[in-house]
Amino acid sequence: MKLNIHILLVLFISISVSCKKASNPTTTTEIVSNVKREIERVEPPNWWIGFKNQQLQLLVKHPNISEAEPSIHYSGVSIAKVHKADSPNYLFLDLHIAENTKAGQFNIHFKYKDGKELVQTYSLKDREQEAAKYQGFNSSDAIYLITPDRFANGDSSNDINENLKEKTINRKEDYARHGGDLQGIIQHLDYIEQMGFTQIWPCPLLTNDMQESSYHGYAMTDFYQVDPRYGTLNEYKELASKAKEKNIGLIMDQVANHCGNAHWWMQDLPFKNWINQQESFENNKPLNNSNHRRTSNQDLYASKRDKKEMAEGWFVSAMPDLNQRNPFMANYIIQNSIWWVETLNLSGIRQDTYPYPDKTFMSNWARAIMNEYPNFSIVGEEWSTNPLLIGYWQEGQKNKDGYQSHLKSTMDFAMQKNIVDAFNEEEKWDAGLVKTYEGLANDFAYASPKDIMIFPDNHDMSRIFTQLKGDVPNTKMALSYVLALPRIPQIYYGTEILMNDFKKPGDHGLIRSDFPGGWQDDAVNAFTGEGLTNTQKDMQLFLKKILNYRKSSAAIHHGKTIHFAPFLGTYFLFRVTEEETFVHIINKNEQPISIDLKRYAEIGLNGKTLKNIVTNETFVWEDEIILNQRGSLLLTTKI
Amino acid sequence: MKLNIHILLVLFISISVSCKKASNPTTTTEIVSNVKREIERVEPPNWWIGFKNQQLQLLVKHPNISEAEPSIHYSGVSIAKVHKADSPNYLFLDLHIAENTKAGQFNIHFKYKDGKELVQTYSLKDREQEAAKYQGFNSSDAIYLITPDRFANGDSSNDINENLKEKTINRKEDYARHGGDLQGIIQHLDYIEQMGFTQIWPCPLLTNDMQESSYHGYAMTDFYQVDPRYGTLNEYKELASKAKEKNIGLIMDQVANHCGNAHWWMQDLPFKNWINQQESFENNKPLNNSNHRRTSNQDLYASKRDKKEMAEGWFVSAMPDLNQRNPFMANYIIQNSIWWVETLNLSGIRQDTYPYPDKTFMSNWARAIMNEYPNFSIVGEEWSTNPLLIGYWQEGQKNKDGYQSHLKSTMDFAMQKNIVDAFNEEEKWDAGLVKTYEGLANDFAYASPKDIMIFPDNHDMSRIFTQLKGDVPNTKMALSYVLALPRIPQIYYGTEILMNDFKKPGDHGLIRSDFPGGWQDDAVNAFTGEGLTNTQKDMQLFLKKILNYRKSSAAIHHGKTIHFAPFLGTYFLFRVTEEETFVHIINKNEQPISIDLKRYAEIGLNGKTLKNIVTNETFVWEDEIILNQRGSLLLTTKI
Repeated sequence: MKLNIHILLVLFISISVSCKKASNPTTTTEIVSNVKREIERVEPPNWWIGFKNQQLQLLVKHPNISEAEPSIHYSGVSIAKVHKADSPNYLFLDLHIAENTKAGQFNIHFKYKDGKELVQTYSLKDREQEAAKYQGFNSSDAIYLITPDRFANGDSSNDINENLKEKTINRKEDYARHGGDLQGIIQHLDYIEQMGFTQIWPCPLLTNDMQESSYHGYAMTDFYQVDPRYGTLNEYKELASKAKEKNIGLIMDQVANHCGNAHWWMQDLPFKNWINQQESFENNKPLNNSNHRRTSNQDLYASKRDKKEMAEGWFVSAMPDLNQRNPFMANYIIQNSIWWVETLNLSGIRQDTYPYPDKTFMSNWARAIMNEYPNFSIVGEEWSTNPLLIGYWQEGQKNKDGYQSHLKSTMDFAMQKNIVDAFNEEEKWDAGLVKTYEGLANDFAYASPKDIMIFPDNHDMSRIFTQLKGDVPNTKMALSYVLALPRIPQIYYGTEILMNDFKKPGDHGLIRSDFPGGWQDDAVNAFTGEGLTNTQKDMQLFLKKILNYRKSSAAIHHGKTIHFAPFLGTYFLFRVTEEETFVHIINKNEQPISIDLKRYAEIGLNGKTLKNIVTNETFVWEDEIILNQRGSLLLTTKI
Repeated sequence: MKLNIHILLVLFISISVSCKKASNPTTTTEIVSNVKREIERVEPPNWWIGFKNQQLQLLVKHPNISEAEPSIHYSGVSIAKVHKADSPNYLFLDLHIAENTKAGQFNIHFKYKDGKELVQTYSLKDREQEAAKYQGFNSSDAIYLITPDRFANGDSSNDINENLKEKTINRKEDYARHGGDLQGIIQHLDYIEQMGFTQIWPCPLLTNDMQESSYHGYAMTDFYQVDPRYGTLNEYKELASKAKEKNIGLIMDQVANHCGNAHWWMQDLPFKNWINQQESFENNKPLNNSNHRRTSNQDLYASKRDKKEMAEGWFVSAMPDLNQRNPFMANYIIQNSIWWVETLNLSGIRQDTYPYPDKTFMSNWARAIMNEYPNFSIVGEEWSTNPLLIGYWQEGQKNKDGYQSHLKSTMDFAMQKNIVDAFNEEEKWDAGLVKTYEGLANDFAYASPKDIMIFPDNHDMSRIFTQLKGDVPNTKMALSYVLALPRIPQIYYGTEILMNDFKKPGDHGLIRSDFPGGWQDDAVNAFTGEGLTNTQKDMQLFLKKILNYRKSSAAIHHGKTIHFAPFLGTYFLFRVTEEETFVHIINKNEQPISIDLKRYAEIGLNGKTLKNIVTNETFVWEDEIILNQRGSLLLTTKI
């Protein structure tokens, strides 16, 4: 691995040297009279002026393009270096974009030795807003996670696309496409807003032109194309802008580790090391899956073999593992991310399978993005219940190996499990609520606990209602606790109406069931409430109340957290600011219980009137509180 | 707590100022003609010259001693300050011992207003060896943990002491005294040496003059007295010196958190805050036990109440909780520890219940000892399977709250559990041996993994053979793995002959059963092998072979550790130095299995001949290894 890092560094240095040489802007500028698109593929498809990084590396794909000599005549733009690849059908052009370059279009000329010339018009756009305005998410937000194929079918005309391999739609098959799309989300932004969510995170919306099970979106076959079954790039932009109008941020789900095996480049890979195990792949030899031993990223004692199997094994056999140690691949992925941030005006990126790609690359990737968008958010998925690993990946952690991730947010799979255990277990000295109490104590070891994402469940695990065995009060307590923590909460669509996977617990297709009302003629409509059971309606209202309260609660946004060890089946958590104190009480007792409030005297609530956030009832904090039923109680001093 | 720290600091400063004033040595020196002992109690009972810390605080207890004026006439020794306590029967004298003070005896005169004078002769001794020679333990050692009452009865004349409350001895009662003693350990040092142990850690040997269940030793009633049922101070010294002759270090088990409720000072506490909850205690009001919420030591969100309940609650109701925030108590405990290190020439201290005393005090305590004995070892007991807590307490950990423990060694309860799980669980992708593989990976987060103590069990938990459900091959694998890790291993007496607590798993008295052969007329004698089953003999020999090999193995002492993810029910761990490679193979397969050794090519063993440490057979490391039976295989290139 060290060797490859070395190569990467040498290459960066050489590029930077080349750039300096070429930094005198070309004085003659060709005028683009009409747009030409004679090259099969140029990526990124456009770029912008005004980035801190003045370099841009274009991937150019066209039959025998390596034999052509490229040239550009545009003031401020120069070709710093031309790289041939291993395949004759690729060129990589290092462009330098000088500081005061103006937005506009220019032609890239590709001149073959025989005199033939191909021309591609390329656009450099003005940026729509300044870098600092790409505002990420934080603990004042609540994120709604959506599986687009399963949320709402807003445009049935795009359900089947004859140009794509999976041509069927079948709502009765858990792993088939169901027809949900961008329009479905756009049409229900009102619902999402009214529920109180301030961010949406749709699972990947880019083309997954796979033979089957393409609905989940994580096997991308084109990193620059919206899957036509979800809609168009313009519709994705429409989602972003309409969400923004409602102060809802858009988080994009990206994958740097792998692509789908039907990705367009798999037919003609630019380099011999574009993907991991490429030689085996090209010779139809057996391929190794990743050993999934993610601890080898940190393990002082890990064998080279385990590290290699972890980094170079494929996530699954249908997903070629990208080799981010190839510097052209590295640039490709970084530029792709920035292209989407800029195109969609994103608030954040959720990066899939964070510990699987080369970790030095992941640090460079995150740094490159955060360098352009200082207030942006990236959250990385490390599925581990080990707080040491969750902490390792977060920006600011003082890792002994010196690793700096530049990753603002990690995911709290540890606390997710603690929450489930807390409610499923009988109260004992070392079981039940103490799991959350002691789990939260681990925050002392995190660089920034408030920037960690917490969730009752997500698209890859059993629904929280299923994990909590169908117990409604426990589910309510788990959800309100998630929303009370010094964290960034994420709720999976349908949690508000107790969607579950009891029929086949853990089955991915079932977890990602259709949201009722998202399809015309659905008997039940969770958007309007029609056909929901009272229990579902109650849960929906419960979440809606809390989420909307959260929006303007200083105590939730940045309050000091104080909690008390579980006591008689109860657990008190306080979020305190000068202007507001928020109280979250969990009560696991079936029978009414009186709790002496002197125990919590240090919070200074004595004699104060508090409001129940869900019922609006008021309560005077004095000698005792009588908890009449199992469930959570949310109180605020903000009346 | 901050307030108390502040007081402590102010006090230290005032002492230091007083000392400076008094630092001119008295010129006239009284000659001690005959030793006088007219004072009930002066502690420490003697001291030494040549410590870095030139201050000594004497606790003086005698009826109405507070009315007396103390004086000392000895060159180099001056009374810097005299402190009255809340009880009239105490004085605390701050002595300053100037740098070139000579060893010798002097009288402390206590003159009452009525002219009456009491005299106490006090000794300042020469130190027997220089500070650097107090050599601690490290990963080249193997520690034998002994419950003294249960190991061997070397002197039956001391079994019952009529001056102590518990006067019975009954080997049939698990919680009664059984008669084991210091002579018992002394007489079997040969056995311990031959087994291959290089350190002994006996549980506390100081007086526990409690009504019942005093055998365990953790309820001390005099911090300066050897329990007469174990022997005398001279016998404790004899144990230390005879062990040292065999290159066996002596670790003392100390308790800073609490004493027994029959401690002599409980009848007349010097200060109003000598113990925690003293007011309740003195007024016979109910006392609170500690909430045992140890995470409140680290928890950013812990309530003041939980911290107070943790720090000031009693460990158990029979053990008053010492208030180390009283600076006189703090000095008392620190000086007591140093007195024992110096008196017994200890190699280390094992400190009980580490997270329970005031943590600022514990840091000061460890620093004070390490300041005098730079190569010494202290290991603290934090019973937690959370690596974050294990790491927090170790010296060198960069804790975000700035806490520095000065504690060289912590205890690996996390890995202990992982080892048990690894063998009890069926092999699966996320169960079985992966528990040890991933557990060991957590070392990346420790300041110094090699200084952490590992153990298959100890005196407070079920015997490892019981934890592993009586499975002999699993027990062997667990033990050899413990001895192969980059850690300091500790083995509890009797593990070598498969002692167990199947009859009543987890019962403390049963866990601490008598070692067969330690009592005259025992039908079985594990020291000689008489009456042991073949399985017991085999286990004893297995451990003996490994422990003796360990003594001179550079690979074990400081080898680089490399391990490979579990594979087909096997798990390979290597310890590598230039001169030696040690291989530890775990095989959980019942049927013979062949493992392709190309997998481990990076270790560079190909073609080399290795020796089986247990059987002395040789093996050439080539294409494959066939593992014929379930168990561990230990190989070394040192032939």
